[in-house]
Amino acid sequence: MTNQNAIDPKSTAVLIVDPQNDFLSEGGAVWDLVGGEVTRNKVVERLSRIKQAAKDAQIPVFYSPHYYTEGEYQSWKHLNVVEKVMFERKMFTTGTWGAEFHPELQPDENTIVLSPHKGLSNFATGDINAQLRQRDIKTLIIAGMAANLCVESHVRDAAEHAFDVITVKDAVAGPGEESTKAAQTNFEFIAEKNVTTDEIVEILQSNLIVQK
Amino acid sequence: MTNQNAIDPKSTAVLIVDPQNDFLSEGGAVWDLVGGEVTRNKVVERLSRIKQAAKDAQIPVFYSPHYYTEGEYQSWKHLNVVEKVMFERKMFTTGTWGAEFHPELQPDENTIVLSPHKGLSNFATGDINAQLRQRDIKTLIIAGMAANLCVESHVRDAAEHAFDVITVKDAVAGPGEESTKAAQTNFEFIAEKNVTTDEIVEILQSNLIVQK
Amino acid sequence: MTNQNAIDPKSTAVLIVDPQNDFLSEGGAVWDLVGGEVTRNKVVERLSRIKQAAKDAQIPVFYSPHYYTEGEYQSWKHLNVVEKVMFERKMFTTGTWGAEFHPELQPDENTIVLSPHKGLSNFATGDINAQLRQRDIKTLIIAGMAANLCVESHVRDAAEHAFDVITVKDAVAGPGEESTKAAQTNFEFIAEKNVTTDEIVEILQSNLIVQK
Amino acid sequence: MTNQNAIDPKSTAVLIVDPQNDFLSEGGAVWDLVGGEVTRNKVVERLSRIKQAAKDAQIPVFYSPHYYTEGEYQSWKHLNVVEKVMFERKMFTTGTWGAEFHPELQPDENTIVLSPHKGLSNFATGDINAQLRQRDIKTLIIAGMAANLCVESHVRDAAEHAFDVITVKDAVAGPGEESTKAAQTNFEFIAEKNVTTDEIVEILQSNLIVQK
Repeated sequence: MTNQNAIDPKSTAVLIVDPQNDFLSEGGAVWDLVGGEVTRNKVVERLSRIKQAAKDAQIPVFYSPHYYTEGEYQSWKHLNVVEKVMFERKMFTTGTWGAEFHPELQPDENTIVLSPHKGLSNFATGDINAQLRQRDIKTLIIAGMAANLCVESHVRDAAEHAFDVITVKDAVAGPGEESTKAAQTNFEFIAEKNVTTDEIVEILQSNLIVQK
Repeated sequence: MTNQNAIDPKSTAVLIVDPQNDFLSEGGAVWDLVGGEVTRNKVVERLSRIKQAAKDAQIPVFYSPHYYTEGEYQSWKHLNVVEKVMFERKMFTTGTWGAEFHPELQPDENTIVLSPHKGLSNFATGDINAQLRQRDIKTLIIAGMAANLCVESHVRDAAEHAFDVITVKDAVAGPGEESTKAAQTNFEFIAEKNVTTDEIVEILQSNLIVQK
Repeated sequence: MTNQNAIDPKSTAVLIVDPQNDFLSEGGAVWDLVGGEVTRNKVVERLSRIKQAAKDAQIPVFYSPHYYTEGEYQSWKHLNVVEKVMFERKMFTTGTWGAEFHPELQPDENTIVLSPHKGLSNFATGDINAQLRQRDIKTLIIAGMAANLCVESHVRDAAEHAFDVITVKDAVAGPGEESTKAAQTNFEFIAEKNVTTDEIVEILQSNLIVQK
Repeated sequence: MTNQNAIDPKSTAVLIVDPQNDFLSEGGAVWDLVGGEVTRNKVVERLSRIKQAAKDAQIPVFYSPHYYTEGEYQSWKHLNVVEKVMFERKMFTTGTWGAEFHPELQPDENTIVLSPHKGLSNFATGDINAQLRQRDIKTLIIAGMAANLCVESHVRDAAEHAFDVITVKDAVAGPGEESTKAAQTNFEFIAEKNVTTDEIVEILQSNLIVQK
């Protein structure tokens, strides 16, 4: 641990993207596509560790959830490949089990649930920029699902908005190993730092000590 | 009615901003500030007429609601004057009567409720752009509350996004007559057309006939 | 002068909107529409004073210019009323005298010229958000042209992005007195503070002293 | 060629990202990082073919250039890894040879040069959304540099804004083979179609015939 890794808890937040059953639980809408990588990367366990370490360090955790409605399934006309898959499978339907947060990742008093996003990023279809800037957040630690889709778009948009982005490269999973790897390759360029869960938890715990 | 006023129902939508009790009902959080103008402009009655005329013309009605949470009241640090008033009065608190849609403006099968917005405009903190563009909407008829605050910001952002904007100048109300007038002055510049409720209802009914 | 008015020069900037000949010089494209108000409000003189006071206080001045091209005049299809006027008059044509900065408001070593904007606001069509956030700017002092059109849209968007906005109510001018007044009415709600040129210059000078 | 591949020339445009010497010419600021892939993928030749085929089909070609200034090199504080590289090497400095368009990709009467972007995407820091929507463009054919950085961010943002995106997978290049591959992996998900230069040129030529 060097000083270079120190983060300021007053201006730092964790952002967890799409921690919902359709991605993270057996039986979820795309479990057949992402389950192997979710399991291999222990995504639920690692997100839980990050969430707890942030809470201990008094750093807020923002959730960016993903919802769709029946009306959207029927009326949206400009779908890319991943949206076609989500719409065919009625993924993230508001009010269903699949759209609920994973049981081990339930929001607590340290969690702020953002307005839901559509497409790929909450910066395009939600309230994330206002929620972060209104709280003077400048550094974002980002993890979640899916690695090369919504997580990567949140990372890119956060960088465009001049946040300092720390990606957690092993607390993500894509639809297939190649997808996870594509995200990890890109994180090396578009994040300020790209670390493991062990590394970010150590940073958060060190900061906690510094803070006291 | 001239051809110049014809609108294409396939690419047109109505947008009603903040049709919630805190603005439109006696006892709402800022009724003392806006009630006089709401009453004078018969906003509830006029919004109801527009909503029905749109439904008859098979034109969708989008609602852009405004919500806040206790967490936001406590943690947001960069409030302008109008946000300070809203936060002091705990306006639009999620789950309260004040945040509910006015009883005469309940959503029906022709209503699409957007993700809620914060601040002034759904384009900044919601999903409106995606919801409209995914449905090939190009023309927006805009009315609601408050005239010179959220309505006007939706109008400006819609224009920036290259939508053709028709404002309904008498189906809005601001906090005081001067505020309503400020919005009406600005609509004359930043909308493509600025019409009365009677005029837009006539256009919608004519289009209905043309369509058949 | 109270402490409440103190601003932090390290996180504050001045933003001057459209300080170009077509607005501010006799013979400009819309001088017949805005010249009376520009003269009455001494806009050039007041912008010059603010620009100098900011420089003395080591606070950067951002310019948000407005340009159009012949190609845009010919191909844009969704014009609101003010754009129709600008396009008919070929206002702000890149490379013309009308698009140049007013002679008394030439950029100097303390001026940062943003990418030009179209429509109403640099937040929609330029690089302002990145330029400000990359420099840790949190407070924006805004003035320029036209009061109720581009200035007001910059003010609204800055508020949405959680900047603290100080409007300079007498260093703006609209197309006609009613337009100037509409902007001033709205500034009272959507800015954090709404001050005169004398007041902001005094604040900037006081800060200068505090800083030393 | 099936009907499924038909595109409407009236609502389609080509978007070429960063076709500048610093990326595409020997001696450019990052030629040592991208030159191998640029050469292997014949990016200049393929972009030239797409540009010509679009012109023949009367489909406009938009350029999204990337510029920085000395002031930005000195004052920006929140740089990700790729920005650090660009800033150290003073890539894309306005007014230098490196920032100029490649000699074989000079704009012509069918080219529309967008306001420059910073960071990764013109949707965040430029005027692309207004320029496209004002012309009723709905389908975007995207290629250019660098594959997994600015091209991919333009692709993602175009999808968020509900454009139909066609990526040209072999008319891009990243910093290293793994980067090019990461982009190609992601295009398969976030574009509506992902085609080769040969395929898009054939589509454009077929459309030309249909149009006559």
